[in-house]
Amino acid sequence: MALSSNDAEAGRQQREVAENENQFTLSNIKLQRLIHLTDYLPDLQIHPNPLDHNPFFHPVSEFYITPYDVILRHILHDLSGAFPSPGPHLAYHRAGPRKQIYFNQTHVRAAIVTCGGLCPGMNTVIRELVAGLWELYGVREIFGIRAGYRGFYSDEPVPLNPKMVREWHRKGGTVLETSRGGFDLHKIVNAIQDRGFNQVYIIGGDGTMRGMVEIFKEIKHRKLYIAVAGLPKTVDNDIGIIDRSFGFQTAVEMAQQAIGAAHTEAESAVNGIGLVKLMGRSTGHIALYATLSSRDVDCCLILENEFYLQGKGGLFEFLDNRLKDNGHAVVVVAEGAGQDIIPRTESQLQEKDESGNPVLLDVGSWLKSELKNWWARDHPKDLFTVKYIDPTYMIRAVPANATDNLYCTLLAHSAIHGAMAGYTGFVCGPINGNYAYIPVEEVAQAKNPVNTKDHKWAWVRSITNQPDFVRG
Amino acid sequence: MALSSNDAEAGRQQREVAENENQFTLSNIKLQRLIHLTDYLPDLQIHPNPLDHNPFFHPVSEFYITPYDVILRHILHDLSGAFPSPGPHLAYHRAGPRKQIYFNQTHVRAAIVTCGGLCPGMNTVIRELVAGLWELYGVREIFGIRAGYRGFYSDEPVPLNPKMVREWHRKGGTVLETSRGGFDLHKIVNAIQDRGFNQVYIIGGDGTMRGMVEIFKEIKHRKLYIAVAGLPKTVDNDIGIIDRSFGFQTAVEMAQQAIGAAHTEAESAVNGIGLVKLMGRSTGHIALYATLSSRDVDCCLILENEFYLQGKGGLFEFLDNRLKDNGHAVVVVAEGAGQDIIPRTESQLQEKDESGNPVLLDVGSWLKSELKNWWARDHPKDLFTVKYIDPTYMIRAVPANATDNLYCTLLAHSAIHGAMAGYTGFVCGPINGNYAYIPVEEVAQAKNPVNTKDHKWAWVRSITNQPDFVRG
Amino acid sequence: MALSSNDAEAGRQQREVAENENQFTLSNIKLQRLIHLTDYLPDLQIHPNPLDHNPFFHPVSEFYITPYDVILRHILHDLSGAFPSPGPHLAYHRAGPRKQIYFNQTHVRAAIVTCGGLCPGMNTVIRELVAGLWELYGVREIFGIRAGYRGFYSDEPVPLNPKMVREWHRKGGTVLETSRGGFDLHKIVNAIQDRGFNQVYIIGGDGTMRGMVEIFKEIKHRKLYIAVAGLPKTVDNDIGIIDRSFGFQTAVEMAQQAIGAAHTEAESAVNGIGLVKLMGRSTGHIALYATLSSRDVDCCLILENEFYLQGKGGLFEFLDNRLKDNGHAVVVVAEGAGQDIIPRTESQLQEKDESGNPVLLDVGSWLKSELKNWWARDHPKDLFTVKYIDPTYMIRAVPANATDNLYCTLLAHSAIHGAMAGYTGFVCGPINGNYAYIPVEEVAQAKNPVNTKDHKWAWVRSITNQPDFVRG
Amino acid sequence: MALSSNDAEAGRQQREVAENENQFTLSNIKLQRLIHLTDYLPDLQIHPNPLDHNPFFHPVSEFYITPYDVILRHILHDLSGAFPSPGPHLAYHRAGPRKQIYFNQTHVRAAIVTCGGLCPGMNTVIRELVAGLWELYGVREIFGIRAGYRGFYSDEPVPLNPKMVREWHRKGGTVLETSRGGFDLHKIVNAIQDRGFNQVYIIGGDGTMRGMVEIFKEIKHRKLYIAVAGLPKTVDNDIGIIDRSFGFQTAVEMAQQAIGAAHTEAESAVNGIGLVKLMGRSTGHIALYATLSSRDVDCCLILENEFYLQGKGGLFEFLDNRLKDNGHAVVVVAEGAGQDIIPRTESQLQEKDESGNPVLLDVGSWLKSELKNWWARDHPKDLFTVKYIDPTYMIRAVPANATDNLYCTLLAHSAIHGAMAGYTGFVCGPINGNYAYIPVEEVAQAKNPVNTKDHKWAWVRSITNQPDFVRG
Repeated sequence: MALSSNDAEAGRQQREVAENENQFTLSNIKLQRLIHLTDYLPDLQIHPNPLDHNPFFHPVSEFYITPYDVILRHILHDLSGAFPSPGPHLAYHRAGPRKQIYFNQTHVRAAIVTCGGLCPGMNTVIRELVAGLWELYGVREIFGIRAGYRGFYSDEPVPLNPKMVREWHRKGGTVLETSRGGFDLHKIVNAIQDRGFNQVYIIGGDGTMRGMVEIFKEIKHRKLYIAVAGLPKTVDNDIGIIDRSFGFQTAVEMAQQAIGAAHTEAESAVNGIGLVKLMGRSTGHIALYATLSSRDVDCCLILENEFYLQGKGGLFEFLDNRLKDNGHAVVVVAEGAGQDIIPRTESQLQEKDESGNPVLLDVGSWLKSELKNWWARDHPKDLFTVKYIDPTYMIRAVPANATDNLYCTLLAHSAIHGAMAGYTGFVCGPINGNYAYIPVEEVAQAKNPVNTKDHKWAWVRSITNQPDFVRG
Repeated sequence: MALSSNDAEAGRQQREVAENENQFTLSNIKLQRLIHLTDYLPDLQIHPNPLDHNPFFHPVSEFYITPYDVILRHILHDLSGAFPSPGPHLAYHRAGPRKQIYFNQTHVRAAIVTCGGLCPGMNTVIRELVAGLWELYGVREIFGIRAGYRGFYSDEPVPLNPKMVREWHRKGGTVLETSRGGFDLHKIVNAIQDRGFNQVYIIGGDGTMRGMVEIFKEIKHRKLYIAVAGLPKTVDNDIGIIDRSFGFQTAVEMAQQAIGAAHTEAESAVNGIGLVKLMGRSTGHIALYATLSSRDVDCCLILENEFYLQGKGGLFEFLDNRLKDNGHAVVVVAEGAGQDIIPRTESQLQEKDESGNPVLLDVGSWLKSELKNWWARDHPKDLFTVKYIDPTYMIRAVPANATDNLYCTLLAHSAIHGAMAGYTGFVCGPINGNYAYIPVEEVAQAKNPVNTKDHKWAWVRSITNQPDFVRG
Repeated sequence: MALSSNDAEAGRQQREVAENENQFTLSNIKLQRLIHLTDYLPDLQIHPNPLDHNPFFHPVSEFYITPYDVILRHILHDLSGAFPSPGPHLAYHRAGPRKQIYFNQTHVRAAIVTCGGLCPGMNTVIRELVAGLWELYGVREIFGIRAGYRGFYSDEPVPLNPKMVREWHRKGGTVLETSRGGFDLHKIVNAIQDRGFNQVYIIGGDGTMRGMVEIFKEIKHRKLYIAVAGLPKTVDNDIGIIDRSFGFQTAVEMAQQAIGAAHTEAESAVNGIGLVKLMGRSTGHIALYATLSSRDVDCCLILENEFYLQGKGGLFEFLDNRLKDNGHAVVVVAEGAGQDIIPRTESQLQEKDESGNPVLLDVGSWLKSELKNWWARDHPKDLFTVKYIDPTYMIRAVPANATDNLYCTLLAHSAIHGAMAGYTGFVCGPINGNYAYIPVEEVAQAKNPVNTKDHKWAWVRSITNQPDFVRG
Repeated sequence: MALSSNDAEAGRQQREVAENENQFTLSNIKLQRLIHLTDYLPDLQIHPNPLDHNPFFHPVSEFYITPYDVILRHILHDLSGAFPSPGPHLAYHRAGPRKQIYFNQTHVRAAIVTCGGLCPGMNTVIRELVAGLWELYGVREIFGIRAGYRGFYSDEPVPLNPKMVREWHRKGGTVLETSRGGFDLHKIVNAIQDRGFNQVYIIGGDGTMRGMVEIFKEIKHRKLYIAVAGLPKTVDNDIGIIDRSFGFQTAVEMAQQAIGAAHTEAESAVNGIGLVKLMGRSTGHIALYATLSSRDVDCCLILENEFYLQGKGGLFEFLDNRLKDNGHAVVVVAEGAGQDIIPRTESQLQEKDESGNPVLLDVGSWLKSELKNWWARDHPKDLFTVKYIDPTYMIRAVPANATDNLYCTLLAHSAIHGAMAGYTGFVCGPINGNYAYIPVEEVAQAKNPVNTKDHKWAWVRSITNQPDFVRG
């Protein structure tokens, strides 16, 4: 296929944007640069986008996204005397179809892998990657990697097609199966190479994204004609930069059920406490949002806001008053909370998780036991009940709701368009409501803690009237 | 295939039945006698039923129930030569309004108490007792006893009226609160007497019913003009004689969610086991029905069918094969199962519950741990995941579904009609689909184990293909 | 209050019953005879039941059902002087596996057909017929007939197996498709014969059952070795003899949603009326049960209780008062209600449905329009809103809930056991909670109207306070 | 209360921003100016924000929002040679608490009114306005206006407090009641003045917002010390500028049920068409999003994309093919679609709605009838079924889901902070994920049509494969 002048122009734009990344000054905008396959494979052939001839698309002038199209990350500005603003404004490439692409549809061989824990919407993402590659770009060789990273080298890939995946969006979990660990860089890259995959779609959380950084770098190092795209998956919403992660809203919805049950159990008992542990190892978003939505929670404990049990201003004093006033109370605790105050045995002190951090102890069971001890000590003659609910699997194993389902569709299509356009080492996600491409290294590092200084947390406190746990 | 004499016999039976279709005769009926207030207060005044003048009722001839109206308990008969049948046929008084009643509506002072654990529908029963007493019989003094039996003597009764309870059927739990224990016979009967209650409605399980037997006897002993009515409540469906208990169908419905989540978790893992503990201390009905409804369960363990883990025909062997075949498995275990094979510590051996039985150990956690040990021992190199779900509170704290809601209405109305008619020491409940009055002593004793010899259990086994755990 | 003789009589009855508790005797039993294939094919070979050797069954002595095992239909008895009771007691053969069967499993060729409108659970019934025939009796030739009766002669049968139907119980509707009409007796029986089917399972309502009577008679007339079993399907619950039909409870549950929405719309408006039309062409069971469960309904209109709009005691007067008192009202109307008072055009007077009855007019739209006219006439200056909801398809197209799902399983297994045992022209269904075989002619005739003289209807009136529509 | 220098500074900032609104050039930003009470009441006293002393807030430096804090509306930029960009960048004031406020909490008298049709979340908004005013600012005089605008002058206001509204977020509809019309400017403003309200919160759609413009202008004209805040409510999502409206996501979720039922009905019939009419008078967002989420829709008709029935490329041709291929099809139609091609009677041609536009005809019923006529004409011998579902009230009368619930909370708090800060004639809403204050005139004009040129619509077409209805 001969290169048209249009095609040449696209390449020029791509290079111009890359070369000038710091020079666009809409009052000082810094564009977060993406790696493109042509960065290390400069002679790649360019192809027209098959959407040009897709009967369902009528590409109008604004249809295709150019490398000049960017999304501003920070949309809040301070117009006060502080001009010029302290640093450059970050911008990201917009996701979407490109007029020219760097793959011939008949030569694409795509692999899809899911890693880590379950999250509502994983199957929708897989479904839409398959349907999108097939319908939008005419790709016919699409494979699922079984059971996480290890599946690249330990299992046969599963051929996928739209008919197979048709109903997958109605199922929780991941039909491809998932697992933790199993990351062996060279085995994985060798397998990708051996099996002839030239597009790899990786669905996973921050650990998975850190693995993806290594895979992508190794592929670049080997100068392989393989695009690697990441689709961030974290039910906890603990990945930064992006607005929120898919499945998160479904999880918050489902958490209402558990809080409702805890509330009923607490209300129906004498001095009843309903205790709900919600997901959130490194951040308390689910606990925070579920508390705000439910309005039945008396105290929400998250790791971003340290708490203590005994003494003035502590949890026990608060609950004592709440039981006196209302006869019952509901406590929500994020699984990552309280790790500093749970006593650890000698072996627990030694034990580290895969990332070298101390293992997470079960804050729910510990708190349940502490509550019982407290009451037996302080109110030995009075009735008391703690009902502890851990709804984790009942929350994360459901299918995505309509909102998350649509998110998954847009996310998958974004990833496809990006890979087809020749970008690699990127992650897709919504920034201020629009889908963007973000360098995977950034995403792998970005945390997303709850901001306990902002209004939302203050509102939690004003809804719950819970203490601030600042020792006076 | 030659016809055996057995085969010939089948044909003969078939013909005999056909020829003799009108000639079978039922043997004697034994009516289960109820205690009536006039048994010990023979001079009680009789009143016409105010339903005679209720604008919403048009009592036709069959409207009022007489003492001659009975329900047969056993509707299955054997018409073969075995005449006469071994014993008399049990019959119970039909529930429903009586033409004459033994209370003057302006003098009724009713108390309602809920005891024991939560069960979907408790609030509907309370609501309908209040609405029914008020609307059907014009009663205006209706009180809730707070937090179980102890509430009679330790708390002020709460006045109730239809406006207060209007929306209670939409709430799980019991607005009156509940508790276990606190049974002090004389304090309770004294309080009933002191507060002037002459109708007492007791909602609770088998333990509560045994308490009611004592209360009722003491009241009879003191010759008090007080009717005591029981409304059996057991989410486990472990009370005999009655068809099933309210809340049970709601619980089975909710259990589907937990099984579904376990199935998704198991399917999405490599060698994944989803383990769900369902309610059922003394019987496995919820586990059985949930398994039959879901069809996603590979093995259903209930206390009525002993099981073992190791060796030929054991659970591990079965799961090993199931994982080889399908890659995953779902196990449902009733909370009362396996108590004989869980090792007990010295202190657990000593510990008895309120009824003097060994305390119930947590079969779910034990099984989870045993499964992990088994796999680590037998398959140390292979991936394995057990996801354990205990959905108890999320199942029992929900409001009743439509079917159970209607049950609760009919149950409450039956109790009211019975008490108004002067019966006492009785329990209401459906027998073969019709509401009956049953002597409370009978109900307090009646167990309701799963019949592992019948077709339903065989069907569970044929759905799950699980072993019979009969050591060969 | 002086004691009338009536009052004294009540006390006497009470004592008489108590004294004579063991002396009542039931009169004769009349067993409803089933047709057996040997009735017209006396030389049929008998086979042992393969369940004898099924690894999941351990047939104990009571496991197999004999022709002597019957179920009593009427379990309510009057023990009073009215001995002997007016007629014989009806009894039906119990459903369940027989020790000897009349089919060789390798020669069975089964057909399954669904007719008429949708009903929750149809797919479960199909699934369980397939799974049961396959797993219990080793049948391997099972076929689905597409789109109702006409499918026998107009379409190729679809081979079915357990793997195909595995997830069908999660789907509403019928995968086999359904249709009305298309009944052509000879074409159907010829097709059954030509295709070599020897077991035919027919799932449908009363019209379908009347068709089955003809099919069964023609097969008998031709002396064919073909068992015909009926599985009654009616979301309206309008088939008599059986306790209730599958899908009915699911429908009542779903109807709550529509009533809830109508209630919200009515409450949120000024003089708001929420009007819900519920299924029930020939009976108002769904309307009745949904009203009892919801408790938000102000008036429930069913065809068994005639109503009128204008004048004293009419609907308008009632609603006028209700709007004055509460500001809103909810009306539930069964689709068969009001047919006598809706004006018919000349052509509607001529139009008959397939059974020759006048066509059903849309009572919901008519009532909505009448309500608007009434208000515009009587209260021209006041705000008024009618929100009309017809949730029919959203109710009947859902999958069965857990209770109905289990019902469908037991129903399907009953049908299989009956056909295998050589019975034909029978229908399965629960009678007093136990599954029975009923001659299809009986079921085809049996109506199941709401009894407006019984307590349930009186309770509806006392919940709604609605008028009795008896013109004074 | 003496004015501190801090207070004076806030006033200065406010005026500076107002005076310099066009001069902040972060590359040419145009701030959308808000009216402030001091614009016409320059001597208003300033008060410190009571949040300073609220035990649940610890205002940090960034806690309070200043008039310099703005949100950029357009976050997508084109970095290409097109510098400078064609026009100024719009910016809006950020919502949130201000350090100084213009109301003394003990003098605030707030009114809340809901207008127009139902929308999930209305009750949450009311609840949070009441709870927020009470808890955050110590306001004790809060009133609900009954049944829309007319309630200001025709009804007594209802005093509200946090206890009353505690459970309202669980209820669909609006407890305050709503109505259309009743807008009488002078009666309304007189009533506001007479009753002493100084904060008015108006919850409604575009028509309501146009009314609010007049109210606000009249209040300004009369120079009244009354802040007027708007909270945009539109289940259709037809208001522009804001990201989306509350209740919209809940509606999309509920619409899945209707589409699912239509799909089941269609699949279970021979040549079955499921037809669902979804809300959307002036825009097809619900239809679009529900189609994308469901993936069961074969054709989505919205007013933004004209369609036709007959001939090449028309709906009938498409459905003919779809029925041939799949045997069934699902069509979703937005209520505003097809108005140009539905024939109007003479009287319908004359009839105008309140805004002077032709009345909306029922596209669902029309389409159902057209489909039947088409089939009868073109395929007179073949079976055909159209099942038409109008789920409007079942969608819009439900409570908000967790996502919308949180939205409602943030929206209500934003409105309170804005009114307290002395802004008036403003509307709150999320812009790019952050809550902003927008001049009500802008919101009253802003439309929000579906962009049929963008990727989402193309994806709908690629999911459905539906025609583009561009006549060739």
